Amino acid sequence: MSASQDDTATISAAHADALARMVDVVGPEHALADLSAQTAYLHELRGLYTGAAALVLRPKSTAEVSALLSIANGAGIGVVPQGGNTGLVGGQIPKRLSGDDRPQVVISLSRLNRVRSVDADGGTMIVEAGVTLAQAQTAADNVGRLFPLSLASEDSCQIGGVLATNAGGVGVLAYGNARALALGLEVVTADGRVWEGLRRLKKDNTGYDLRDLFIGSEGTLGVITAAALKLFPRPAETAVAFAALPDLQSVSALFSLAEARAHSGLTAFEFMSAFTLDLVTRHVPGNSMPVKTAAPWYVLIELSSHEAGDHANERMERLLSEAIARGFVRDATVATSLAQQKALWRLRESASEAQHGEGGSIKHDVSVPVARIAEFVAAANATVERICPSARPVVFGHFGDGNVHYNVTQPAAMDKQTFLELWTTMTGAVHEVIASLDGSISAEHGIGQMKRDDLRRFKSPQEIKLMQRIKDALDPNGILNPGKVL
Amino acid sequence: MSASQDDTATISAAHADALARMVDVVGPEHALADLSAQTAYLHELRGLYTGAAALVLRPKSTAEVSALLSIANGAGIGVVPQGGNTGLVGGQIPKRLSGDDRPQVVISLSRLNRVRSVDADGGTMIVEAGVTLAQAQTAADNVGRLFPLSLASEDSCQIGGVLATNAGGVGVLAYGNARALALGLEVVTADGRVWEGLRRLKKDNTGYDLRDLFIGSEGTLGVITAAALKLFPRPAETAVAFAALPDLQSVSALFSLAEARAHSGLTAFEFMSAFTLDLVTRHVPGNSMPVKTAAPWYVLIELSSHEAGDHANERMERLLSEAIARGFVRDATVATSLAQQKALWRLRESASEAQHGEGGSIKHDVSVPVARIAEFVAAANATVERICPSARPVVFGHFGDGNVHYNVTQPAAMDKQTFLELWTTMTGAVHEVIASLDGSISAEHGIGQMKRDDLRRFKSPQEIKLMQRIKDALDPNGILNPGKVL
Repeated sequence: MSASQDDTATISAAHADALARMVDVVGPEHALADLSAQTAYLHELRGLYTGAAALVLRPKSTAEVSALLSIANGAGIGVVPQGGNTGLVGGQIPKRLSGDDRPQVVISLSRLNRVRSVDADGGTMIVEAGVTLAQAQTAADNVGRLFPLSLASEDSCQIGGVLATNAGGVGVLAYGNARALALGLEVVTADGRVWEGLRRLKKDNTGYDLRDLFIGSEGTLGVITAAALKLFPRPAETAVAFAALPDLQSVSALFSLAEARAHSGLTAFEFMSAFTLDLVTRHVPGNSMPVKTAAPWYVLIELSSHEAGDHANERMERLLSEAIARGFVRDATVATSLAQQKALWRLRESASEAQHGEGGSIKHDVSVPVARIAEFVAAANATVERICPSARPVVFGHFGDGNVHYNVTQPAAMDKQTFLELWTTMTGAVHEVIASLDGSISAEHGIGQMKRDDLRRFKSPQEIKLMQRIKDALDPNGILNPGKVL
Repeated sequence: MSASQDDTATISAAHADALARMVDVVGPEHALADLSAQTAYLHELRGLYTGAAALVLRPKSTAEVSALLSIANGAGIGVVPQGGNTGLVGGQIPKRLSGDDRPQVVISLSRLNRVRSVDADGGTMIVEAGVTLAQAQTAADNVGRLFPLSLASEDSCQIGGVLATNAGGVGVLAYGNARALALGLEVVTADGRVWEGLRRLKKDNTGYDLRDLFIGSEGTLGVITAAALKLFPRPAETAVAFAALPDLQSVSALFSLAEARAHSGLTAFEFMSAFTLDLVTRHVPGNSMPVKTAAPWYVLIELSSHEAGDHANERMERLLSEAIARGFVRDATVATSLAQQKALWRLRESASEAQHGEGGSIKHDVSVPVARIAEFVAAANATVERICPSARPVVFGHFGDGNVHYNVTQPAAMDKQTFLELWTTMTGAVHEVIASLDGSISAEHGIGQMKRDDLRRFKSPQEIKLMQRIKDALDPNGILNPGKVL
């Protein structure tokens, strides 16, 4: 038995025996016990979360996942499912709960990486959990179809994790989040049984919606091993513009106008504050201001058309002319080449990276009803200024979804560590503002470890109780992703 | 205590006491005990299901529903939630299970009929369960917005029932079914507590998706008392066409072409067999053949545009010209006035009614992957011919959703009752065909009483077990809609 020592407790004989059987399931080369081999699975990107695991297991099939969960459930071993390890709330990293000395294993789904089938005419494909988002996009593209989910981490994040966290990204406005793009799932439940729910139907009213219960449950109710995904026609034409606006009310007015004119042809409506764009152009090489007019807010708009010769750029020009005439927009530019479109998108995509150049940052991924975004930003700015005078909000996000990445960069003169010690106080206060506006404390990143305490603080006791009953019903031994969400 | 006698059992003193307290909650005038007063709530439209109830209760508020469920849960009284009593599978009618002598009450949500708020800019509204679908459409229209769900029963069906059954209808192709149109819910759970889930957020990844668990659970997990619904921009222009096609492969090819050209601008793609159209024009006054060319299949297409001056009719003409050139379409007509559009829609909307003129009918509401519709119709026709030679399939439905209303009309010379006695044999055999094609035995009508046995026959034991665990977790005393779904 070669499992490494857990971080807190001696492993009992029964647990050791179960771990040895788990090694047998995947084979020794795919049961990582050495800390050095495990490291990539136990630390997340930003270094915010690290964990310990008795084993990191790399099964290659649904049958192996099933066998592993059956053993874990019998022996009471915690299971942390992991995809591309790109989650931002620590859901994919083992967490030791005080008083719980059961060992935990990480189950990496990376080797379940087959595209099982693609039905171009039917507009569906079935992919395994370990297929990366970029690979899924390519599989669709190869048959002339679009899989529209798009995230900054798409080269490494995996479909299983994308669905377990109901990921969002920049395509949500027109196509919906991960939940809206899944027709069916294959899931291994806590007892090791397989739920064969890989339906490819647009309509199916036969019983409870198990699919949507597993989606977004962050690995606490079951392990997603494969999914049937929706494919869409590829747009024939796309237009991308960047606009400067005088205030958030104008951003809101422009959004309403764009939605009324383009409806589902409006495939992106992203916003950035002037300070965000300042960081992007100063700290990320290759970016420059796309418009000459300075303004407090900037918007990236994308229109798509499915009919060739539809002149998407002309439609965009008409929209912007109307918005300028009505005073919503001060200045704007429309990309005239694919290279220019990419350059405009790059400004938006550089927003997270750009913050690294200014020291510490306290981040919030929140949402409010679209009509209340201006109200939220004003109230949150006042709250932040009260807690940490001269801290600098970096405000950007998916305006059309009501989803604000409200990240606060430290005051220029402050020590980074001193600033980061304000994390709990500041996020608590910003989340209070969110609660007062009927918003969500996690729009697209999930709960994981990071927001577990806040979940209990901001959800009603009745909702927590309903969630707990479902958890107990589907995972009676509590082996699935312990210490996450609930 | 004025509750009427139940149909099978003497009511115990404890149950009688509980029923009396329920009368007190709503007041005697809204606690119907006389059979004559109850009749409208205990018989469904087509006379397929009738039931008995100790009381029909008509609460006027969420608080009253809460009080009623609290009493029912304590005393073990079955609760049948009811909206507009338009369900087609008997879910809204009390059903007595053998060996269960607990009384049942119907809770009608009709008096919870307020539109609580409409946010035109934010694109949301909050309505109570008893608001009819037509009233909800009107509330949206009054502020210049669209609530796109549309059903034949929209003047009487209610939002609570629409969500409890995840209703579909003709707008699903572009806007999704009821599930896709709900942002949040208010639900009274079995213990009488209220889950305040009336969120109006486009993105919210904070814990399990309770909303989608209640939607489509047909009143077996909780009673929906209000919903936050999505509103959409109203189309600026609409074009409607009717086309004659040589075979189902051509229908499929036309659908793919229309989807590629119009994408989400394709707001309806409905199909009807020649025999369906024959019945519609012979039995429903005011209908006539819209095209001169006879063909085995007909399609109604609707294109919508959100930009005025977009010339939706010209886009439709282009689509049909291409389809004719490629041999998919034999003949077609495009409506040139609103009156003509309505006349074309009326052909499709008359399909159910038209069958009444030809005697008995055995109905199936099924779905398959869109690419397999032709395969399904061929196999189902062969199956029906084997079971009842000369029976006449009436095939129509929401082609773009893979949803076929496969209804079988009796042979012209057969006795109606003799034909209807084949119901179980025929639906069982047609559902076997559906199972072999990875389809659904209930695309949009739900399970209710009608398909409860077939659910156990066609779902895996693992799926039934997961559903049962959730049912037991949320309704441990089994009071919610007994004998339905599970």
